[in-house]
Amino acid sequence: MARAPDSPLAVSLGDPAGIGPEVIAKCWDSRAEFNLPPFVAIGDGHSMAAVWDGPIEVVDDPRQADAAFDYALPLIQVPAAEADMPGHPSVAGAHCSLDSLELAVGLARSGSASAVVTGPVSKEQLYQIGFTHPGQTEFVAERCGVSPGNVVMMLAGPTLRTVPATTHLPLAEVAATLTTALVEARGRAALRGLQRNFGIPEPRLAVAGLNPHAGEGGKLGREEVEIIEPAIAALAAEGWRVTGPHPADTMFHSGARANYDAALCMYHDQALIPIKALHFEEAVNVTLGLPIVRTAPDHGTAFDIAGQDRADPRPMAAAIRMAAECALLRSETA
Amino acid sequence: MARAPDSPLAVSLGDPAGIGPEVIAKCWDSRAEFNLPPFVAIGDGHSMAAVWDGPIEVVDDPRQADAAFDYALPLIQVPAAEADMPGHPSVAGAHCSLDSLELAVGLARSGSASAVVTGPVSKEQLYQIGFTHPGQTEFVAERCGVSPGNVVMMLAGPTLRTVPATTHLPLAEVAATLTTALVEARGRAALRGLQRNFGIPEPRLAVAGLNPHAGEGGKLGREEVEIIEPAIAALAAEGWRVTGPHPADTMFHSGARANYDAALCMYHDQALIPIKALHFEEAVNVTLGLPIVRTAPDHGTAFDIAGQDRADPRPMAAAIRMAAECALLRSETA
Repeated sequence: MARAPDSPLAVSLGDPAGIGPEVIAKCWDSRAEFNLPPFVAIGDGHSMAAVWDGPIEVVDDPRQADAAFDYALPLIQVPAAEADMPGHPSVAGAHCSLDSLELAVGLARSGSASAVVTGPVSKEQLYQIGFTHPGQTEFVAERCGVSPGNVVMMLAGPTLRTVPATTHLPLAEVAATLTTALVEARGRAALRGLQRNFGIPEPRLAVAGLNPHAGEGGKLGREEVEIIEPAIAALAAEGWRVTGPHPADTMFHSGARANYDAALCMYHDQALIPIKALHFEEAVNVTLGLPIVRTAPDHGTAFDIAGQDRADPRPMAAAIRMAAECALLRSETA
Repeated sequence: MARAPDSPLAVSLGDPAGIGPEVIAKCWDSRAEFNLPPFVAIGDGHSMAAVWDGPIEVVDDPRQADAAFDYALPLIQVPAAEADMPGHPSVAGAHCSLDSLELAVGLARSGSASAVVTGPVSKEQLYQIGFTHPGQTEFVAERCGVSPGNVVMMLAGPTLRTVPATTHLPLAEVAATLTTALVEARGRAALRGLQRNFGIPEPRLAVAGLNPHAGEGGKLGREEVEIIEPAIAALAAEGWRVTGPHPADTMFHSGARANYDAALCMYHDQALIPIKALHFEEAVNVTLGLPIVRTAPDHGTAFDIAGQDRADPRPMAAAIRMAAECALLRSETA
């Protein structure tokens, strides 16, 4: 980093049986190459020692991490009731992943950590211990006192940022789920996030249509006319720089991407296909609308390859780097 | 071209008031740089002279084109009842564009031309003169004696080929339109096209899911389980190499693209977002299932910029180059 935030980042290990510990350890190994700021890992040190033989320095406060970071990976120990084998998740590991997440969020809320980066958890395991949220994002929102409806997921890569207006729905239900209020709320959250997290004073939002060719003036679907255009008009009336609805197939080439700071997409794959086609190893999940900075790599626990030294640390490195950049920008504009 | 087909390509100008004449003229201008084989333009020479002051050699048979191609753009004149102004389409121009298309297809059917490349037409103008097909593809199919249901559109770029199973439908109607028979037929046509047009003896087809994460085993939609998986099984039972259903967001990065020769997508934007994000200037529309080779650039008439010398000839050049490559491969495997 050219400059690092005042406090280290808190990086939760995620499920101890997943690839989280491995990719976080590899990030510390390659901290110079990846250009990473000081961070402290939060989780069970045994899960990391099981997949990595590098130096770990157990600390109990993030403020001790800066000094250790040069020679060891600083870690705040969150004990697990039993040690997981990589690739073999357990209820004890799920508890540990949730405790680690909660502690990381608390450290960022208190200012001891400048941001939270979350390692991948297993929703299936978490559901077994009574977790009721759709994912980590909603849990973090609740712990920050923010309604899950007011936070949005942004996928951010070097040349593209996308925000899905709807997420994990069957495609057949997308059209019936879209409302002007929803598109407007997601658009406003994206615009504010571009200001707050990315330091863009007058952000430009490009809104995608839902249908082929953005509906061709209503001939290939009415959602653009009835739902999306009114949302764009409402945001524009508030003074935001918003364009669209754009045909989704022609808004993601390099010339088009130069015209906006983020694309608001109508459904999961409309947002995720272009970001992963262009930036598979560098796409970062950024949660907008929180009082803290939170990022995550856009991959799962990958239990099938855990413990085999095959996991690619680049997505986690991109998430750590982006968290630091957002934290710096926030501290400068606060 | 390292080697050119035996006969020149027939390139229809499309709507005389659109950018077709301009981009085709620019292709001849840059024939060496673009590495283009001899081709003959089919259309109204006045529309080309209105936007280009290069040399035109009027011929009445494609066999005369080879000799002329070095020093002039060979053109078979298709008269228009009145000369269009660039950017100002007319009924006379629509008639001329249809006559040019019909002649180009006839030349390829007879073997005088090795392939057809079609310039962009205006469907709105064509509908005014009684044209009843959804687009040029279906017209070409009819003229070739093939049912439109048996031809498929492929978008092909340097590192990705996609085939949409459904095309110009409102997104809300996609799920209800998909059937196992449709996915199977499109898949088979894509596989045969990869053999016939691209010379791949044992093509690999990757089939996309419809829903986020390919439905997560039915939790985010049942179409994968009920419609797509049976189609894949049926194709595999015939001996084809078919995989999927794959989550659409993780099948278009470079590592994933290396595992297949074409992706069968479930809807328009699922196929067109990745190809245009990755290969905007080089994406070629290839019609599979015809007795002739037919390609087209994947852009429209662009009446708004016609006659301003602003049109990018690279998509047309890519379409001409790919038509020649496919024609050569067909002649070698015939």
